[in-house]
Amino acid sequence: MPIFTPSELRQVVHDVFSRLGASPEEVRRLQDHLVESNLLGHDSHGVWIIPLYVDMIRQQHIVLGAKPDVVIESSSHAVLDGNWGLGQLMGWLAARLAVDKARQGALAAVTLRNCSHLGRLGEYSQMIARQGLIGFVAVNGQGGVQGVAPWGGLERRLSVNPMSYAIPAPDGVIMLDISPTVVAAGKVAVKALRGERVPEGWIVDSEGRSTTDPDAFEGPPPGSLVPLGGYKGYGLGLIVDILAGALSGGGCSRPDAGRWGNATFMLAINPAAFGEQRAFETEVKNFLAYVRSSRVAPGFEEVLIPGEPEAREKVRRSRAGIFVEDRTWSNITAILDELKRHSSERSL
Amino acid sequence: MPIFTPSELRQVVHDVFSRLGASPEEVRRLQDHLVESNLLGHDSHGVWIIPLYVDMIRQQHIVLGAKPDVVIESSSHAVLDGNWGLGQLMGWLAARLAVDKARQGALAAVTLRNCSHLGRLGEYSQMIARQGLIGFVAVNGQGGVQGVAPWGGLERRLSVNPMSYAIPAPDGVIMLDISPTVVAAGKVAVKALRGERVPEGWIVDSEGRSTTDPDAFEGPPPGSLVPLGGYKGYGLGLIVDILAGALSGGGCSRPDAGRWGNATFMLAINPAAFGEQRAFETEVKNFLAYVRSSRVAPGFEEVLIPGEPEAREKVRRSRAGIFVEDRTWSNITAILDELKRHSSERSL
Repeated sequence: MPIFTPSELRQVVHDVFSRLGASPEEVRRLQDHLVESNLLGHDSHGVWIIPLYVDMIRQQHIVLGAKPDVVIESSSHAVLDGNWGLGQLMGWLAARLAVDKARQGALAAVTLRNCSHLGRLGEYSQMIARQGLIGFVAVNGQGGVQGVAPWGGLERRLSVNPMSYAIPAPDGVIMLDISPTVVAAGKVAVKALRGERVPEGWIVDSEGRSTTDPDAFEGPPPGSLVPLGGYKGYGLGLIVDILAGALSGGGCSRPDAGRWGNATFMLAINPAAFGEQRAFETEVKNFLAYVRSSRVAPGFEEVLIPGEPEAREKVRRSRAGIFVEDRTWSNITAILDELKRHSSERSL
Repeated sequence: MPIFTPSELRQVVHDVFSRLGASPEEVRRLQDHLVESNLLGHDSHGVWIIPLYVDMIRQQHIVLGAKPDVVIESSSHAVLDGNWGLGQLMGWLAARLAVDKARQGALAAVTLRNCSHLGRLGEYSQMIARQGLIGFVAVNGQGGVQGVAPWGGLERRLSVNPMSYAIPAPDGVIMLDISPTVVAAGKVAVKALRGERVPEGWIVDSEGRSTTDPDAFEGPPPGSLVPLGGYKGYGLGLIVDILAGALSGGGCSRPDAGRWGNATFMLAINPAAFGEQRAFETEVKNFLAYVRSSRVAPGFEEVLIPGEPEAREKVRRSRAGIFVEDRTWSNITAILDELKRHSSERSL
């Protein structure tokens, strides 16, 4: 049950990926992304994912050193081709471009195709909001990795299609990071790994029957995540699949998509263009205070704003350290040992 | 149980509102909006609402003849003040402005404050999509008419905050028109009117207890609509309250908001700026065909695309006629009789 400080984990990320040939910038993006995800409590996008990314780099699914091409560009939008580069770097560059353009005007949209896994979308929407803008980010699987059957259907036809919103607020950032399904696929995978049942309502099996057996999700035959609120979540997922897939040119969910990635749609809106930035932030501040002033429901200690549970977890874990499961840690250690052996052999 | 043709209902709308002083353009907008809502099966935004609008006009809550002011404008955005004019006209003008701007560039956002009830949001998103653009429309209650408690709270702090997306597709328009709650408030009101129970999970009472008594929603003390998927629907509603309330200057939900309205955020995205319009529409077409190709779940006849249930209802009602409840019809008849009496008295 190892527990680490953030800087220890940053060192681990550095040691693994720099040995694999990642540039200092790529290493920094991975350090920021993975360790921040762990700090916020989103462990599924934390260091747990290192072995997967190592495999992807070795198989050239993630192409280290790739630079994005700007395919189309105007003052308020751009279409980028990520050339299968590291998602954490491509996503960061796309968000920075959206911020730069929106700041010059009122709003900007940037799409991105041929880009590997972006990880936690809140990273990019928050980055936009920290610059004083409203951020929206959504991705599909660039046609592949479907996990959701349409409402009224039995076979997977949509990616999970997560989305994230972030809004600048005087005492931090409002951040919502959700999939339009009852739960994200990662939560089902964790239950399956641990041999636990899933709650009723998370997934259905290949015949559309509600089940608590997490293995019924992957199958074979594969089941489906349950869309949030039935047709509403199905509809939201379908919209995201089009925004991210069709506007980027990466493609919507389809059969035989080949290489999967995170085709991406990002939007940045500049509140200062719609009035005074300060008036916007004061309005948001007063609204949040009003929301918080509600009497608290039984079973809750207080009313929280989206993003606050994560911000509090970050404070807690920054002090108490980040817990990494034995299995994850031994996987990472094995990779590190192998990389060190390999580099010392090369230096002989 | 009167059943009407669309043109009969258009005549009724004309007769009521032109006698109240609505301009030909205002009458046309009301005809299109109310009768189309009935045709699509969204009766809560159909002719049922005529008596409410008549009251609002008489109380000067809806200001007939008002023109919008353009408060801020650039090539990609605008902030409009509706001067409390008719929502159906102000919303239509705002959507047209968003379309014009997005067509010249890549995307455009238009906000609108001091505007009365917009009605069915799908009207505006669909209008944008029929011009070949992606449309998004969201409104709050300009601070007032709250109906949703925050996640973990007991007291209403947010408007219902509905949103609508529409996307052009080769064989029509994809249209999603939802609130981030399990059901819209109108459905609870209809159950209360009919003396029926509501299904478990729609509403909670003032102490946060799930209830099937529709009267527990309005109270006193008032209950709350249940947010879609708990914290996810709460988060989406909070984002909409800020997009619509803070970016328009109309204001987010707050105590003592005074006059309620529909502060509005609209976004239009031009797919042609991100590639070829035809390539976009082909991608969407192929995606929809793939979604439809799923095996059908038990209890369903086929997989439908968002907006199709409404489009089919329109075909059906265009043939079979539009049913209007006796009570609604007698209310409308009473208003018409009174208006006719009043105008014949004036002509004596």
